[in-house]
Amino acid sequence: MDAKLQGYIDKLNSLNFKEMYEGDFFLTWDKTDDEIEAVFTVADALRYMRENNISTKVFESGLGISIFRDNSTRTRFSFASACNLLGLEVQDLDEKKSQIAHGETVRETANMISFMADVIGIRDDMYIGKGHKYQQDVVDAVTEGFKDGVLEQKPTLVNLQCDIDHPTQCMADMLHIIHEFGGVENLKGKKLAMTWAYSPSYGKPLSVPQGVIGLMTRFGMDVVLAHPEGYDVMPEVEEIAKANAAKTGGSFKKVNSMEEAFKDADIVYPKSWAPFAAMEKRTDLYGKGDFDGIDKLEKELLAQNAEHKDWCCTEELMSKTKDGKALYLHCLPADINNVSCVDGEVEDTVFDRYRVPLYKEASFKPYIIAAMIFLAKEKDPQAVLKALEERGVSRHFN
Amino acid sequence: MDAKLQGYIDKLNSLNFKEMYEGDFFLTWDKTDDEIEAVFTVADALRYMRENNISTKVFESGLGISIFRDNSTRTRFSFASACNLLGLEVQDLDEKKSQIAHGETVRETANMISFMADVIGIRDDMYIGKGHKYQQDVVDAVTEGFKDGVLEQKPTLVNLQCDIDHPTQCMADMLHIIHEFGGVENLKGKKLAMTWAYSPSYGKPLSVPQGVIGLMTRFGMDVVLAHPEGYDVMPEVEEIAKANAAKTGGSFKKVNSMEEAFKDADIVYPKSWAPFAAMEKRTDLYGKGDFDGIDKLEKELLAQNAEHKDWCCTEELMSKTKDGKALYLHCLPADINNVSCVDGEVEDTVFDRYRVPLYKEASFKPYIIAAMIFLAKEKDPQAVLKALEERGVSRHFN
Amino acid sequence: MDAKLQGYIDKLNSLNFKEMYEGDFFLTWDKTDDEIEAVFTVADALRYMRENNISTKVFESGLGISIFRDNSTRTRFSFASACNLLGLEVQDLDEKKSQIAHGETVRETANMISFMADVIGIRDDMYIGKGHKYQQDVVDAVTEGFKDGVLEQKPTLVNLQCDIDHPTQCMADMLHIIHEFGGVENLKGKKLAMTWAYSPSYGKPLSVPQGVIGLMTRFGMDVVLAHPEGYDVMPEVEEIAKANAAKTGGSFKKVNSMEEAFKDADIVYPKSWAPFAAMEKRTDLYGKGDFDGIDKLEKELLAQNAEHKDWCCTEELMSKTKDGKALYLHCLPADINNVSCVDGEVEDTVFDRYRVPLYKEASFKPYIIAAMIFLAKEKDPQAVLKALEERGVSRHFN
Repeated sequence: MDAKLQGYIDKLNSLNFKEMYEGDFFLTWDKTDDEIEAVFTVADALRYMRENNISTKVFESGLGISIFRDNSTRTRFSFASACNLLGLEVQDLDEKKSQIAHGETVRETANMISFMADVIGIRDDMYIGKGHKYQQDVVDAVTEGFKDGVLEQKPTLVNLQCDIDHPTQCMADMLHIIHEFGGVENLKGKKLAMTWAYSPSYGKPLSVPQGVIGLMTRFGMDVVLAHPEGYDVMPEVEEIAKANAAKTGGSFKKVNSMEEAFKDADIVYPKSWAPFAAMEKRTDLYGKGDFDGIDKLEKELLAQNAEHKDWCCTEELMSKTKDGKALYLHCLPADINNVSCVDGEVEDTVFDRYRVPLYKEASFKPYIIAAMIFLAKEKDPQAVLKALEERGVSRHFN
Repeated sequence: MDAKLQGYIDKLNSLNFKEMYEGDFFLTWDKTDDEIEAVFTVADALRYMRENNISTKVFESGLGISIFRDNSTRTRFSFASACNLLGLEVQDLDEKKSQIAHGETVRETANMISFMADVIGIRDDMYIGKGHKYQQDVVDAVTEGFKDGVLEQKPTLVNLQCDIDHPTQCMADMLHIIHEFGGVENLKGKKLAMTWAYSPSYGKPLSVPQGVIGLMTRFGMDVVLAHPEGYDVMPEVEEIAKANAAKTGGSFKKVNSMEEAFKDADIVYPKSWAPFAAMEKRTDLYGKGDFDGIDKLEKELLAQNAEHKDWCCTEELMSKTKDGKALYLHCLPADINNVSCVDGEVEDTVFDRYRVPLYKEASFKPYIIAAMIFLAKEKDPQAVLKALEERGVSRHFN
Repeated sequence: MDAKLQGYIDKLNSLNFKEMYEGDFFLTWDKTDDEIEAVFTVADALRYMRENNISTKVFESGLGISIFRDNSTRTRFSFASACNLLGLEVQDLDEKKSQIAHGETVRETANMISFMADVIGIRDDMYIGKGHKYQQDVVDAVTEGFKDGVLEQKPTLVNLQCDIDHPTQCMADMLHIIHEFGGVENLKGKKLAMTWAYSPSYGKPLSVPQGVIGLMTRFGMDVVLAHPEGYDVMPEVEEIAKANAAKTGGSFKKVNSMEEAFKDADIVYPKSWAPFAAMEKRTDLYGKGDFDGIDKLEKELLAQNAEHKDWCCTEELMSKTKDGKALYLHCLPADINNVSCVDGEVEDTVFDRYRVPLYKEASFKPYIIAAMIFLAKEKDPQAVLKALEERGVSRHFN
């Protein structure tokens, strides 16, 4: 057997992730350290196999359902790529073309689309308190449908972004960090700055900063969350970050200064988001149908944002990081000064210098999603990886 | 060979369905009893194979084209599932993104999308006299295209709902009944009530009640069609129902009372639909471009509907059925009191009690569609089923 | 080995097309005569194999990305068919559902959608100076992404229509001509009339007439371009046509009379297009956001068009062609008198007489696209064709 592939299998043999079989992926902090590491390992293994022209198609038929309640390019294509890599055909539930507006319950729709679905990927990040709840409702529905004999298989949920976490993004970010730093064992004591940055747009999701502090605090790093006053994230997630840090010998700290966060940082992740409290208020107004109130809130928030145009990832700030060479991260697309806006999250020269690593960061997402599916669908993932190599079917017959 | 699969093959050996090869599926009453039974048998066989992880992928490449001229969730996903199960990739013809508005003829479009199409599934149920006609035009076009050497294969039409019939729905309903009653031989003398029910919405298709009376009268059951005065369905379909009943020793009766229909019924199917005469008028107005007339008609019909709010499947009515335990059917989504509307087709407690069987009813649709395709595409379906088992490719490699 | 398939392989062995491997397909005149002939040969071979139920699926997984910046039916389905034939799953980038409006650069989007993309097909024909440029930017981006290690493979671009050329259309047209005339060796001295024709619509792309004169002048034919004064195509493409003709012993001539063009023609291609100069002006107005100017221009052009209603492919004109039997071509859909409009490009009786050959003309497009992909993806196409025959997997298992 190929030595590198054997290495991934050996690694998996050392981990306990048996609870992932037939499970779902909602939030990274639902998962044990071993489970998180299993996802990284399978992602690397699947990538290695694809790069070496070994087909990892484990499904001859089956659907991967996607539900995008917000626009998406990279997550949509990542999900499609992951499903395709494993042999599942993507079928998008376009709520505009369906009968959902027709008063149908979530329970019903979830079952109706799942008769031959092995996976359901959902993005629902628009309203605080809604996205995660919706994903749970879908999983409850198909779990019950499977138990009741309605469905022949329980489709696996992959959270493609909710109001709380963005696990496929943050795990792709993290796998990128691991590769850049040469292994998870080199991360202890490294400083990561998750900082707010100014953007002319309004109401960017909180799930990225929350996902980052909820995940990155698990590897012994010193994680700093920086934002202007009033731009807090969900307090529950901050508690998780603190607990993680305490367990792994790292730290979690909050500051109100971008400079302080960048100082000697090994990794920086400057990105705009909306204040949690304002997003909660927005959800309430939405619930009441108070659209004038929503407009008013939007204006207030844009005015509040405009006071913090100095929160930008400049060359000067970058020079204050460790050796002036911190790894710059972003989930993309970024608001780049003089490219997509006048004042934004990052100076164009900084962005340009990190373009290749940024694109590489994004390249991990299809494999993270594929690994999540693989671990939920295969009872013995190591055996299947081995059998796939032995089967010897080329991805590209040439 | 697996005994159960052999049983399905034996069953098929006893039936004459050779005319289905290279045929199309428009209306159930175009088909002989043997042909209908062949569809049920292949549907069960394909389901059995999938449940036992045997791949039934008979196409390495090929497209399944879908044309939805009305919104759809479950039929869209059922069609996608069926195509995927057999190895065909769904390509949806979104008429908004195509050049069809451009004055192109049906004949031309049908050929242009069919160069590699093995199946075309069409939903066109909006206007009386249009949907079935459109499907016929498409079939005529591709049949001619095949004869002329334009197309390498004649794609099979699957009627995914027209103005006259909804065969994939009604055959899924029927297969559910067969399974619930333990076999088609147990249906003789059973009473089935297809009844109108109130819905606050307007203009629901007639194809379900028509499809039900056109199909369910073929099994020796006592079929009762109940609706308020003025809510008649197409007279031609009533004639078919009468003729079917006469042939099979069952009966077909019309009443204007939900109570009477429910009394001692074994199966009830309460569902809203629009009056046939009004839908004909609407088609005429549409043809004339008289949109004010259409608005006026809609208002009249909603007012007429509102006089029949008492046509609701209540607990009280259910208690009048055979042992108070009739099988409740619906094509979904239903208008449920206090769930999707104040007054609707069914009380929430009734609906809730039948949720699992209702979802199972829906679960047959992908297999009914797959069976229709299979029987049109395979010259010797029994041999292919056998060969698929012998090939021994798993649906899910694990 | 099958003799006919061996014939295609022998033909390929006589051609030099090694530069096509890992290349892109922008414009036919970028390609050598051998390369063009290789595309025709592989298209015929793939068609022959499909007709003989030999699977040509060379990809177990992989995506074919489509970007349609203009409506499309036949090219959309042709691209989907071609990808499916080779084993790639189509994933459409719907710019309305993506975050592209979000200020993202072409470079970024191109990489983000390409992590598992083997092919990108783009239609962008709306603005002069834009479509080809956009396709080049995408190719530059993914080429760089591949070199930088962001992408595991460089997706191949297939130009599905730009502002300059429409190679998949014109090569399908040409392959149809070759088949109708019994081989490319029979085309020397044949007269082909590419002529403007009246249409009540506005602003049809120039890429078809340009593509036709840029390609058809390479086979020793006498190509005549006819249009009313003011309806010139891009001068650069006329230069290419002249140079081609000079090289192959054919001719390229411009006239302002449909009669003159049709006289003794063996092949006629009457089709509406917009004047190049006007389209350039329109692009400028668009660049300035001058929508009133665009409306005004549109009115002027429609008025100008209306002066040329006599430019119609009538029975009388057809009778002036060689033996009154010239091969009539069109990319479809055509504006047909009394069918899609009162006055249009062609009389209905002419169109009807040529319906079957017109549909056959269109049937080559999926294979032309598949051949372009095949030649870009296979290092040794002859060996792969042979191996596919030896593999002996049926397209349809029956």
